[in-house]
Amino acid sequence: MPAMDPENALRRAVEAGLVVRTADPLNAETPISELIASVVTPTARFFVRNHFPMPVLDADTWRLEVGGLVERPLRLGLRELRRMPTMTIAATLECAGNGRALLEPAVPGERWGLGAVSTAEWTGVPLAEILDRAGPRAGAREVLFRGADQGTVEGHAEPIRFERSLSLGEARRPDVVLAYAMNGEPLPVQHGFPVRLVVPGWYAVASVKWLTEIEVIERAFAGHYQGEKYVYETEQHGVLVREPVTLQRVRALLVEPRPDEQVARGELTVRGAAWSGEAPIARVEVSVGEGRWQDARLLDAPDHGWRWWELSTSVDAPGVTTVRARATDRLGHHQPEHPAWNRLGYGNDAIQAVRVNIV
Amino acid sequence: MPAMDPENALRRAVEAGLVVRTADPLNAETPISELIASVVTPTARFFVRNHFPMPVLDADTWRLEVGGLVERPLRLGLRELRRMPTMTIAATLECAGNGRALLEPAVPGERWGLGAVSTAEWTGVPLAEILDRAGPRAGAREVLFRGADQGTVEGHAEPIRFERSLSLGEARRPDVVLAYAMNGEPLPVQHGFPVRLVVPGWYAVASVKWLTEIEVIERAFAGHYQGEKYVYETEQHGVLVREPVTLQRVRALLVEPRPDEQVARGELTVRGAAWSGEAPIARVEVSVGEGRWQDARLLDAPDHGWRWWELSTSVDAPGVTTVRARATDRLGHHQPEHPAWNRLGYGNDAIQAVRVNIV
Repeated sequence: MPAMDPENALRRAVEAGLVVRTADPLNAETPISELIASVVTPTARFFVRNHFPMPVLDADTWRLEVGGLVERPLRLGLRELRRMPTMTIAATLECAGNGRALLEPAVPGERWGLGAVSTAEWTGVPLAEILDRAGPRAGAREVLFRGADQGTVEGHAEPIRFERSLSLGEARRPDVVLAYAMNGEPLPVQHGFPVRLVVPGWYAVASVKWLTEIEVIERAFAGHYQGEKYVYETEQHGVLVREPVTLQRVRALLVEPRPDEQVARGELTVRGAAWSGEAPIARVEVSVGEGRWQDARLLDAPDHGWRWWELSTSVDAPGVTTVRARATDRLGHHQPEHPAWNRLGYGNDAIQAVRVNIV
Repeated sequence: MPAMDPENALRRAVEAGLVVRTADPLNAETPISELIASVVTPTARFFVRNHFPMPVLDADTWRLEVGGLVERPLRLGLRELRRMPTMTIAATLECAGNGRALLEPAVPGERWGLGAVSTAEWTGVPLAEILDRAGPRAGAREVLFRGADQGTVEGHAEPIRFERSLSLGEARRPDVVLAYAMNGEPLPVQHGFPVRLVVPGWYAVASVKWLTEIEVIERAFAGHYQGEKYVYETEQHGVLVREPVTLQRVRALLVEPRPDEQVARGELTVRGAAWSGEAPIARVEVSVGEGRWQDARLLDAPDHGWRWWELSTSVDAPGVTTVRARATDRLGHHQPEHPAWNRLGYGNDAIQAVRVNIV
């Protein structure tokens, strides 16, 4: 699939059944009820999150500049990148605002339901390889990633670029990749053609698209999308507390049954995916109505990306009831009954409830 | 992606860059030079092998009949299957005739180059689950799979259905799946909508598409596509010897550099995939010109499907040279220098050579 132009991206998103939240910039959710228990989400159905209009970059003239506090600044073309050592990793990307529409009281920002999450197989060059070639100098503290997307934002007079940083330690993790392919094909424009960063386990804001510059810096970066947005803002004892959004919180997504589905009495299959940025999934439990929590079966899976689970149970009493699923990771993180409300609406990993009608 | 009609399938195959060998029935190779080092091959680029015109089945009326020597004959619809326990597995399918065009002297049959191989993530119900529910009776020996595709073949007056069998032991292997999805979407028509068998590790002929009947039998099946085709036929000491085609032979596919590519002196990246139906890949080696065999690096991968590998080496002398790659599996199977010729042209796993021009 070659890079698509932005209008094509919108048309294809609609054709693929994505739930379009905004057309310009394009923001669209994965149709979760169409998910099948596979690791990869088809690229056409992968959720799309943009902050600015999508830049259309040319594969032949695109260059990645690696500079700042390094011994050997680099300037790499796509062909050079593709000749470098390769890695492929399945990684689940989730928007930090996934589930925001379920917060009460309502907060500003894209009103995501639960479909701002998808998984793909990403292929590219390990970021550590690039950093090793450039050689960070003494005093290096963070690695700043700059995308080609830009625009004006509240509180800034001049247009800004999309920028995010990682600590040098995080940036050197062996699973962090400069990806030029997704599910076996070149990245489509809406996913960052020609090259994006993919930081497995982190909320997707860290996975900078349309990457053009990597700068090793000696300070802690605090630009718009790191210091002003993508922070958990709460008031504690009258004081405004801000914490950065980093790793994905543990969560189970319930795919089947669907909301308001009519379910025949008898056998009921409950199925979905679960993930945590902090540790592998240890356990998923399901409850129906006021019934006890039952352990779901975790499906075999590779080491990375979300894990599918399912439970076959039975329902006998007719009427409206609620199916819930909750996940626990190996470090013991679990999901709250109610969302941990915060002013910008990030990280809502409250237990999902799906209402069904037993007939 | 809904089931596509057969004409659409041909048009899409052409659009996706598949190398069409015959249009009716549709037979088309994966464009191997477009492969990226990912486990999954994009569905649109997955090779297509048909023996008859593609049957167009209706998801609502389709039924799978499970009968023969069983305690409890079954008749299952697609919805029932989708409610049963799920599994997802990455599996490489390779046509037994892959590489036939390279055989000398030439043999009859589809003239496949090296692109009759692809990998997908398959989701469905474990075949063992279905067999357990049906309960094979005493005397059961094989399980026969019948597709909805049919037509006339040489030597048979009446039209035949596409049929293949597995021994009861093979059929119960936990990795054998009745797949209703491929790379996270319903099967497209050319890959067997709504349900196909997938037998990981076997040449793809075993993975019956458009499955409608499973019959447990007490005899050894020897129908057209098992006894007359898909057999290694050789003459040994004047006697015709026939051996059935079963597991995929070990093989390394060389994706980069491409045939007749102009390669600049200096660093050369050699990359490809390797698989064996008999055991995991243990080693891939690459040679350039008359140079020694060098060990390629095996990329991380899940437990199933092909394994990608790469080697960065250097080339200094200008001129035409040959790059070769060979794989060895953990049971010590390795590839021959020259094809093991057989009359129907199956299982050609000879070491591949790619000629490049160093400039």
